Amino acid sequence: MAITFTISARTSTNAARLGRVETPHGGFDTPAFMPVATAATMKGLSPAQVRSTGSQIILNNAYHLLVRPGAEVLRHFGGSHRFMRWDGPILTDSGGFQAWSMSDVNTINEEGVTFRSFVDGAKIMLSPEGSIEIQNAIGADIIMAFDDCPPSVADEDGAVPRSKVTGGVTRTRPVIRDHAARLREAHERTARWLVRCKAAHRRPEDQALFGIVQGGTDLALRKASVEAVCGVDLPGYAIGGVAVGEGTQEIRRVVEFTAPLLPEGKPRYLMGVGFERDIVSAVAAGIDMFDCVLPTRNGRNALAFTRTGPIRLRNARFRLDSEPIDPDCDCETCRGGFSRGYLRHLFMADEMLGPTLVSLHNIRHFQALLLDIRKAIRQDAWSLLDRDWPVLRDAAPSSASPSAPARSPSSGPSSGPPSGPPSGPPSD
Amino acid sequence: MAITFTISARTSTNAARLGRVETPHGGFDTPAFMPVATAATMKGLSPAQVRSTGSQIILNNAYHLLVRPGAEVLRHFGGSHRFMRWDGPILTDSGGFQAWSMSDVNTINEEGVTFRSFVDGAKIMLSPEGSIEIQNAIGADIIMAFDDCPPSVADEDGAVPRSKVTGGVTRTRPVIRDHAARLREAHERTARWLVRCKAAHRRPEDQALFGIVQGGTDLALRKASVEAVCGVDLPGYAIGGVAVGEGTQEIRRVVEFTAPLLPEGKPRYLMGVGFERDIVSAVAAGIDMFDCVLPTRNGRNALAFTRTGPIRLRNARFRLDSEPIDPDCDCETCRGGFSRGYLRHLFMADEMLGPTLVSLHNIRHFQALLLDIRKAIRQDAWSLLDRDWPVLRDAAPSSASPSAPARSPSSGPSSGPPSGPPSGPPSD
Repeated sequence: MAITFTISARTSTNAARLGRVETPHGGFDTPAFMPVATAATMKGLSPAQVRSTGSQIILNNAYHLLVRPGAEVLRHFGGSHRFMRWDGPILTDSGGFQAWSMSDVNTINEEGVTFRSFVDGAKIMLSPEGSIEIQNAIGADIIMAFDDCPPSVADEDGAVPRSKVTGGVTRTRPVIRDHAARLREAHERTARWLVRCKAAHRRPEDQALFGIVQGGTDLALRKASVEAVCGVDLPGYAIGGVAVGEGTQEIRRVVEFTAPLLPEGKPRYLMGVGFERDIVSAVAAGIDMFDCVLPTRNGRNALAFTRTGPIRLRNARFRLDSEPIDPDCDCETCRGGFSRGYLRHLFMADEMLGPTLVSLHNIRHFQALLLDIRKAIRQDAWSLLDRDWPVLRDAAPSSASPSAPARSPSSGPSSGPPSGPPSGPPSD
Repeated sequence: MAITFTISARTSTNAARLGRVETPHGGFDTPAFMPVATAATMKGLSPAQVRSTGSQIILNNAYHLLVRPGAEVLRHFGGSHRFMRWDGPILTDSGGFQAWSMSDVNTINEEGVTFRSFVDGAKIMLSPEGSIEIQNAIGADIIMAFDDCPPSVADEDGAVPRSKVTGGVTRTRPVIRDHAARLREAHERTARWLVRCKAAHRRPEDQALFGIVQGGTDLALRKASVEAVCGVDLPGYAIGGVAVGEGTQEIRRVVEFTAPLLPEGKPRYLMGVGFERDIVSAVAAGIDMFDCVLPTRNGRNALAFTRTGPIRLRNARFRLDSEPIDPDCDCETCRGGFSRGYLRHLFMADEMLGPTLVSLHNIRHFQALLLDIRKAIRQDAWSLLDRDWPVLRDAAPSSASPSAPARSPSSGPSSGPPSGPPSGPPSD
């Protein structure tokens, strides 16, 4: 068994659990937040800086690493841990979501997904077996099944947005006329692909394969997907197809329905979520693991998270502001005395240090939230969270306006909704 | 007196001296190399990372900081040290060189230089008094006189290149038909402006004003400039107008002639130089201080310096190279185990961490050279340098091909010649 999972405490008021996952590269406390190091790098942060945020496990994207630098390079260097010099646990996303959402042209059928490389336009076919092969080469401690992940929300025609522009390239996706049928197909295919993934997995002794539940916002489909996916014995399970365009209330409804259906004694991972309140309500529903690009993608765009809500550092009102981003934050940016005024200067001057310092702060912001979540569970004092995190009290999604609009369907599916224009490939 | 300078050792074979400058923000050992943090940031490096390279003093550019964020912001934050969170010594360039070399349209007359802001195109007039005023606001420990710095090399018509393209903007400069006359005018004006600078200086007790010797490659003019500039009593003196288009031999000829003419007991600063061999030969001529954008500008373009010469990390031959940039280097990038293959991946994927890690290495490379230079002086064993730094043995400029071509006049004047296309304003 590649990982072990131990639950050490529970709350009396909801389904939250405190635990720890041990992996071949060390352990991490749950509930856990995993920042996203898509291409085997957390953008401008060194591994030491990532470590300073309290991050214990990080995420890599198999899709990006398959395209560049490719499996040969990763195998040569002995996998991602040694390649990127991160000696802690790593989880890889399977590429199912990215292949679908990012590709210039692609087709999806029972065999897998065919897409064009974002580097040279070459056609690449990614199958369940191919995904596991690259994930075996990357060598993450936790790897994900290759899933069929359609958007959760259809537009007024019943079609999903047919194209989006990313980095100047228009990406075209097939129009889906019957969204309900597409969700059903995705759930069934995901279950069939899971069996193929498990069979293809060559390193079960040191890489834990997690299955992914699909079903969109259709609770009956979610239930059917749980039964099919959890029917395959695996070390952990994830809820996928969430935060791909639907609103906060829909995310919550799906998670509160689905989480309790997952096996009690194994880690439960909610993929690509999310804002502070989404995480807190998902933990209350029994979720143990989270990943999201919000801290880094927003950090690059000068949006900084604080306990009272996000702030846009390019705003002129910060010009002479000598306060740190968040006076209550203990990150290297805030403790280091970098003022909002200085950070604003860095962004106005397009200086790389701005994205680095704000991403560092934003990751710490989420890790501090998870620290407080774990403390609230340990002390069985859930209300501490509302007291210490004013941003959670603010129930109306519209009030988090700097970030909230990006969650709308118009921004297209994303494993983490960006705020403002994305400054790179959509999955970080 | 804002600074003190103590010479503690000399070599028996040349004019090199070992010393220390004490400033209100601590001291630095000489000969010293100052990396360039143009806009109050060393690009992607945090102050802690800059410190890790062994850098004791850094440079800011008054011109850039005048345009953005401006004197009001800098005064509000109590100067650059507190603004950028660098508690060690800082030196500011006066803006004379940058105003001339970077501006879209400018005129130069006895009053000063008029240029267009690179931010919003607004006309800005920078005079000796204005330069000192912004430098007083920045609050660097050492500030530079506002000088008239023409190119050292004329083209075949006797004219300097009339325009260059930087960041997509064509910058036009006046054509100089009589280069010799222009050099003479620059020297004389620089001397007159120095008197105005000294009179305008409001913080002589904690900011040391250095004068700048001009005269291009005309040694008689250099001598006249030394007499005029050093006739004004100041805590230190610099040689300007070097490495602005002329070759290595010309640089050497000018420095070897000019350095011994400068006052013996005060720090001697050679502005904007340079490659390893330029630095070593200038130290041998009696120079104490250097600044150059080479490590950071080249670092951003994937060119890494090593003791045996520079390497271009984007080259396909590094794809599977698991060695660090330089096995003899003790920087955080090399000691941290980041391989050439990984660094290549970062640059191919356009990931910010690549420029950060290679700039960090490159700065350490120059600081390690300066450490060895100081050791060679202390031990009076100059030949150690040739033994430990093979790059110095390589006398032909053409052999350092990855970097050398950028020193040609065609790239225009620059306080540090870029290698490959510059990825930002020309003075870093």
